[in-house]
Amino acid sequence: MTEFFDTVDSIPFGGPASADPLAFRWYQPDRVVGDRTMAEHLRFGVCYWHSFAWDGFDIFGAGTLDRPWHPSVAPGLDPMEAARMKMDAAFEFFAKLGTPYFSFHDIDIAPAGATFAETCRYFDEMVDYAGQKMADTGVELLWGTTNAFSHPRFMSGASTNPDPDLFRYAAAQVAHCMQKTHELGGANYVLWGGREGYETLLNTDMSRELDQMGRFMNMVVQHKYDIGFEGTLLIEPKPMEPTKHQYDYDVATVFAFLQKYGLEDEIKVNIEVNHATLSGHDFHHEVATAVGAGIFGSVDANAGDDRLGWDLDLFPTSVEDMSLGMLEIMRGGGFTTGGMMFDCKIRRQSISRDDLFIAHIGAMDTLAKSLLVAQSIIDEGELDRRRAERYAGWDTPEAREILDGKISLQEIHDDLVASGHEPQPVSGRQELLERLVARHIDTAS
Amino acid sequence: MTEFFDTVDSIPFGGPASADPLAFRWYQPDRVVGDRTMAEHLRFGVCYWHSFAWDGFDIFGAGTLDRPWHPSVAPGLDPMEAARMKMDAAFEFFAKLGTPYFSFHDIDIAPAGATFAETCRYFDEMVDYAGQKMADTGVELLWGTTNAFSHPRFMSGASTNPDPDLFRYAAAQVAHCMQKTHELGGANYVLWGGREGYETLLNTDMSRELDQMGRFMNMVVQHKYDIGFEGTLLIEPKPMEPTKHQYDYDVATVFAFLQKYGLEDEIKVNIEVNHATLSGHDFHHEVATAVGAGIFGSVDANAGDDRLGWDLDLFPTSVEDMSLGMLEIMRGGGFTTGGMMFDCKIRRQSISRDDLFIAHIGAMDTLAKSLLVAQSIIDEGELDRRRAERYAGWDTPEAREILDGKISLQEIHDDLVASGHEPQPVSGRQELLERLVARHIDTAS
Amino acid sequence: MTEFFDTVDSIPFGGPASADPLAFRWYQPDRVVGDRTMAEHLRFGVCYWHSFAWDGFDIFGAGTLDRPWHPSVAPGLDPMEAARMKMDAAFEFFAKLGTPYFSFHDIDIAPAGATFAETCRYFDEMVDYAGQKMADTGVELLWGTTNAFSHPRFMSGASTNPDPDLFRYAAAQVAHCMQKTHELGGANYVLWGGREGYETLLNTDMSRELDQMGRFMNMVVQHKYDIGFEGTLLIEPKPMEPTKHQYDYDVATVFAFLQKYGLEDEIKVNIEVNHATLSGHDFHHEVATAVGAGIFGSVDANAGDDRLGWDLDLFPTSVEDMSLGMLEIMRGGGFTTGGMMFDCKIRRQSISRDDLFIAHIGAMDTLAKSLLVAQSIIDEGELDRRRAERYAGWDTPEAREILDGKISLQEIHDDLVASGHEPQPVSGRQELLERLVARHIDTAS
Amino acid sequence: MTEFFDTVDSIPFGGPASADPLAFRWYQPDRVVGDRTMAEHLRFGVCYWHSFAWDGFDIFGAGTLDRPWHPSVAPGLDPMEAARMKMDAAFEFFAKLGTPYFSFHDIDIAPAGATFAETCRYFDEMVDYAGQKMADTGVELLWGTTNAFSHPRFMSGASTNPDPDLFRYAAAQVAHCMQKTHELGGANYVLWGGREGYETLLNTDMSRELDQMGRFMNMVVQHKYDIGFEGTLLIEPKPMEPTKHQYDYDVATVFAFLQKYGLEDEIKVNIEVNHATLSGHDFHHEVATAVGAGIFGSVDANAGDDRLGWDLDLFPTSVEDMSLGMLEIMRGGGFTTGGMMFDCKIRRQSISRDDLFIAHIGAMDTLAKSLLVAQSIIDEGELDRRRAERYAGWDTPEAREILDGKISLQEIHDDLVASGHEPQPVSGRQELLERLVARHIDTAS
Repeated sequence: MTEFFDTVDSIPFGGPASADPLAFRWYQPDRVVGDRTMAEHLRFGVCYWHSFAWDGFDIFGAGTLDRPWHPSVAPGLDPMEAARMKMDAAFEFFAKLGTPYFSFHDIDIAPAGATFAETCRYFDEMVDYAGQKMADTGVELLWGTTNAFSHPRFMSGASTNPDPDLFRYAAAQVAHCMQKTHELGGANYVLWGGREGYETLLNTDMSRELDQMGRFMNMVVQHKYDIGFEGTLLIEPKPMEPTKHQYDYDVATVFAFLQKYGLEDEIKVNIEVNHATLSGHDFHHEVATAVGAGIFGSVDANAGDDRLGWDLDLFPTSVEDMSLGMLEIMRGGGFTTGGMMFDCKIRRQSISRDDLFIAHIGAMDTLAKSLLVAQSIIDEGELDRRRAERYAGWDTPEAREILDGKISLQEIHDDLVASGHEPQPVSGRQELLERLVARHIDTAS
Repeated sequence: MTEFFDTVDSIPFGGPASADPLAFRWYQPDRVVGDRTMAEHLRFGVCYWHSFAWDGFDIFGAGTLDRPWHPSVAPGLDPMEAARMKMDAAFEFFAKLGTPYFSFHDIDIAPAGATFAETCRYFDEMVDYAGQKMADTGVELLWGTTNAFSHPRFMSGASTNPDPDLFRYAAAQVAHCMQKTHELGGANYVLWGGREGYETLLNTDMSRELDQMGRFMNMVVQHKYDIGFEGTLLIEPKPMEPTKHQYDYDVATVFAFLQKYGLEDEIKVNIEVNHATLSGHDFHHEVATAVGAGIFGSVDANAGDDRLGWDLDLFPTSVEDMSLGMLEIMRGGGFTTGGMMFDCKIRRQSISRDDLFIAHIGAMDTLAKSLLVAQSIIDEGELDRRRAERYAGWDTPEAREILDGKISLQEIHDDLVASGHEPQPVSGRQELLERLVARHIDTAS
Repeated sequence: MTEFFDTVDSIPFGGPASADPLAFRWYQPDRVVGDRTMAEHLRFGVCYWHSFAWDGFDIFGAGTLDRPWHPSVAPGLDPMEAARMKMDAAFEFFAKLGTPYFSFHDIDIAPAGATFAETCRYFDEMVDYAGQKMADTGVELLWGTTNAFSHPRFMSGASTNPDPDLFRYAAAQVAHCMQKTHELGGANYVLWGGREGYETLLNTDMSRELDQMGRFMNMVVQHKYDIGFEGTLLIEPKPMEPTKHQYDYDVATVFAFLQKYGLEDEIKVNIEVNHATLSGHDFHHEVATAVGAGIFGSVDANAGDDRLGWDLDLFPTSVEDMSLGMLEIMRGGGFTTGGMMFDCKIRRQSISRDDLFIAHIGAMDTLAKSLLVAQSIIDEGELDRRRAERYAGWDTPEAREILDGKISLQEIHDDLVASGHEPQPVSGRQELLERLVARHIDTAS
Repeated sequence: MTEFFDTVDSIPFGGPASADPLAFRWYQPDRVVGDRTMAEHLRFGVCYWHSFAWDGFDIFGAGTLDRPWHPSVAPGLDPMEAARMKMDAAFEFFAKLGTPYFSFHDIDIAPAGATFAETCRYFDEMVDYAGQKMADTGVELLWGTTNAFSHPRFMSGASTNPDPDLFRYAAAQVAHCMQKTHELGGANYVLWGGREGYETLLNTDMSRELDQMGRFMNMVVQHKYDIGFEGTLLIEPKPMEPTKHQYDYDVATVFAFLQKYGLEDEIKVNIEVNHATLSGHDFHHEVATAVGAGIFGSVDANAGDDRLGWDLDLFPTSVEDMSLGMLEIMRGGGFTTGGMMFDCKIRRQSISRDDLFIAHIGAMDTLAKSLLVAQSIIDEGELDRRRAERYAGWDTPEAREILDGKISLQEIHDDLVASGHEPQPVSGRQELLERLVARHIDTAS
């Protein structure tokens, strides 16, 4: 087996001032931060699709990346041979980079066959190969997922398709891919509804489609129990793209859906940073919303461009943004089965073979530093203390009565008419708290 | 009593080609469209705040409008005298325009007193005056609402305030205003959470604030039953502005909230067009979402500017947009207690006294024409027929079994492995349907 | 030669109420509107790339469209044979639809060869074939253009590339394609800088790249004169996508560029509707800006989706929007060499063979109706009269002195100190004018 | 004279780890960074309007801030007495904070009189008072400016008003305010066209209005020479708000305007961060654009919220964003007459008297740290070296010939046909460069 990334060795730790682009500046997997190691906190994963299955094409141009197993580069190559080449390169990459996890879509790791049955056979064979690779390298599966959006057959959706044959096709794929994810010891199973939405309401019965999706998800939950899969089921919200409107718009919308179809204790969310911002929310807002609703699961750690209106899937570089996200994750108790999956694309011009390493190292350092900042804020306690003080009035017995439902609107009204009490304003202290966060960003080490 | 709009008489019907800006081109209240008159379908209302309580100021400049009762114009005027002048002008306007409904915030119609008790007395007095005006003119109250966001005391929220005293203040206001809305025969009561949100998560405990708001809304529901109010309670979604993030972000978010706090059968939504678009959705999407969730209530009929990121509150002028909204409303059965409230501002440069009429007439014609278009589409039946045909596969017994939960993911999988069935793609026909809608817009009359 | 669109004949005129999706409701090429026929006003063109060279793929999925000449459908087909099949279908379409013009990129009509020289030979051969087709059908070339953005070699730009070899490659392509456009009698030559911009300023010297582009455009102008091409050179503004920032951001930015490099009398703009809205402007604003700057050239007539942040290239369906655009075009004197090019994509789900016709017919009717509305507004004269009256003060001799530079700031100051004159406010009458436009939309016929 | 900010003393330097919100962590005015002191690089200024003339009102609610001189707080106070109180507090603030500069609009520092002449007299009196304060404290004037947008008279614009009387009124104000700015030794004079734009093109003749503005600016330039003012004239771009479209949309648009009216050597730009982002550009893009066009002047240092579509005027807190801006400023040679003006609002809930200090200290530290990062990048040289290498091909004699206009498109074409040369792709190295910047952010000290 040939080494694909032959100019790169295992990535060492170089320290914050290291100018070596191929050394970590912040990420030390075994360093203890609070109650866990960095590796346990962050649970990094590399994604298969952007990093190994994509050739760099975009809607305005053809692939640029050095992916010798890709059909656009080697059209005559045997598809299973190409799949093995790709997997060899991927696991070489995972091992050298030192990420504990990876993720895949069914179609990322194995080619399509002439029939569904043949596709399953190819897939099973590659799953076996992956199992060996995992055993050899110690890399584990953070999640598996089904691609029920790229093939033309899914142009009008999968579970929400007006044609039940597509519901069936997607159902069959999910049944199979969940089983294999289970066999590989996957920690989660993700469902992203890439075409579950609409292009125009003129031809769409939204209520009908939501009922279909509600049924589908209930079947997925049942299947999980049927096969004994103990990982977490995750829906990944996205507001738009490729469709005009996607049903899993944002965390709140998914929470409405889960409640309506009785799924709020069974399915959690996988929050992608760039999907959060496309839906009009800060990433840390989406995390806090999910934690509050009890459905926080995992993260697709990437970044958008705030000037651009589509999914950029940039590697995260902002400690300022991600520290606020980490803070909400840690307030919520940190990851259980979830982790930080790099659903990121290198730029189309980044065609050197080591660029893929550099991009991932940068992202891992961004998040490791952000973890240190969040832990530093938590350890100091000042931010949480100030926040708690702001709500101290609600901890009095009189205020508790309100929350406990022991007092009516009319009683409150009559009391105010009688007392004439005027509430006293208190500063929100936003700038002071922003300054506090800035200090931790500057000093965490 | 002096006539304020002395250059304008009752607005006549002039017909589609009329060039008179002070005549209706489409709106004929008694014209029967489908199963109701235009007036019954559209249930138009004029809002008090923008049209009578606002002097035209914006964040960059002082008021421009001719509002002789406004403190910025007549600082020395007795506040109750000013309130009566304003109400005289308002009812003169309602009557001449011929809208059957109006709406108000408590603070729109009466001045603040030195204490809450005094404020209530002023308000009660003006409610009595409004009652006489309503009796005189036949104009009815579509909804009352509480302003718990403009006074500095509410800078950090009302029910979601970190200080329970503000929860109490807002509760007292709502208790009082609901009672008076009830006495005036209001058809609905609206709750818009103008400061129910946050500026920064750094000082905000979102879960705590949502629990507070959940309690508040449950108390409001109880109060409704306690006082015997039979109107509909409505939450009005808005994603942002004035706060960075408002908890009632959009219809789906409100639906999640209602379900979490057991309110989905008690509270519906009042959908504002410009709030819909600020949250990233088409207006008709929000209507369809609310109808599907069983929480469609009423509409704030205005328009945004798709190039601008704040709440413009323009008078609606687009038949193309509003026809799609009317279609979803009518598919959902039309209004019951709700209606079309013009939560619209005339432009700050529109300082002629008749501009307020022209703006409303234009909006009423836009919606009357949109109603005709929607009815025309429904009467023809072609659009709904094509949509139903698209889902015909789901009406087979085999597909019904899926929806009825009689088949598992694994069974579907095994069937597909065995059958090798490949679904057949069918055109979505978007352009054909857009063309169908365009035809109805051109020909409805 | 086989008929590709065998279920469609030449598109007849059916009239406004026609429910036949394959008949025009408004477009009658020979109907005289004002001083020209509809065909002369609108100068419709069909684009080659979206309609014949694209298979319906998007960034999340493979092609769906019925394009039997496309390599994704027929990978083994001889490329030149495929190019001829494509051209046969295209001209069959142009002729049946009855558009007088078409447009192409060099790479749309002919395959790439192993070398630039071979590519040129293929291209020349297909240009000859196109020439015959044009002669046979009477369809003419609205514009040719070079694709210097899709091939991976252009990943870092063409004329603005950090490597001069790419400048050279693009220069060679443009030289060749302009020559052939000239030979085919093209009315214009368009330059869209798809990769002329940057992904990150960290690796970009923007000043240097703009100087390169300034030089390139001067060379293009010189080439035009050298070869005797008498058409118009057009730059097509777009703010972003595929790059993060494109240098030809909007009309104003292009005007700054043209002035800086001495090109403002040589190059005009081709304004695309969806590019206008992506840059934050209404389409009619961009037209008015270009007319004011003396650089209005042509239009890519499509539409965006105001909720989505990428280039949708929808077929235009809004008479309300396009009427305002047509009004500005006609105020500017109408098209000379330019026209309405349908740079539009049918939706990926619109896979019936006649969908491409229906989409174009809908767009043509949208613009034909918009033309009638604009002409109706102009004929009535009321809108322009009201606008002119608003500025009447500037036509006095005293005001003229200001514009003629005969009075200084200090003199004006001293006059105001002396006179104490307070300007009198006048209503801007926005709602009245919106109502006027709505009337013309409803009544133009 | 009473001390207004009596709980705050002069702000000391506390060092990066200082938890004192009232001590600088990074800003040390006398610290030498590269070729200048921090104070000389950054040239900080405090703005009068948001910090002293604004009471915290927004479009949805009344003022919240502790401003005892404001008419909303003390309606009976003599306006000139209030103006002196405000100025006392302002200069106390400037002096304690230690910013070398301030800025004002004419109407910020003095009340309006009954006539223009009286307004001038009030203004002159307050200018004298300011002159004394400046002499006492050593604080200097970064720029003066005219407010020709807040008064209702300017509702339809100033120089671009359809009524020449408003052009005259604004001209008189500018003549007067420039003279006084000159007398106070102002380093610049700024022109922000708050209402120079339109609400609707239906009533607007954009070409006419631009000609008016072109004339106005030429008169302003002439006035500058007439009175001997040696400061810089600056236009401040903003795309929208309060108007729908503002003529000074962004730097490129202003550059087009300046060239058209022959002003590109006379007027530069004052770039506001939040205006940049509202126009769709990163701040550092706007700086680089201005530097490239030779019109970079000064900066309004604030921040927007990337999720919100209006002008937030936040105090800057992002070192990540501002470092990139500082880098472009320093590449352009740094400030000459310009500086960093804090056109920022404290949040409406920040009602403690020291919040205004904390907000400014945070902003000054953000920029001081950003300066250190930019200098660190420049000192290392690696980023610029890599960028220059990317363009090395353009430094060959063959490539120079292209830029020098010695070779034609046809010659390049013929060469490529002959040579068949295929350009070689090179990685853009975006992620590597992002990682380099991250290192400097982490290590600059």
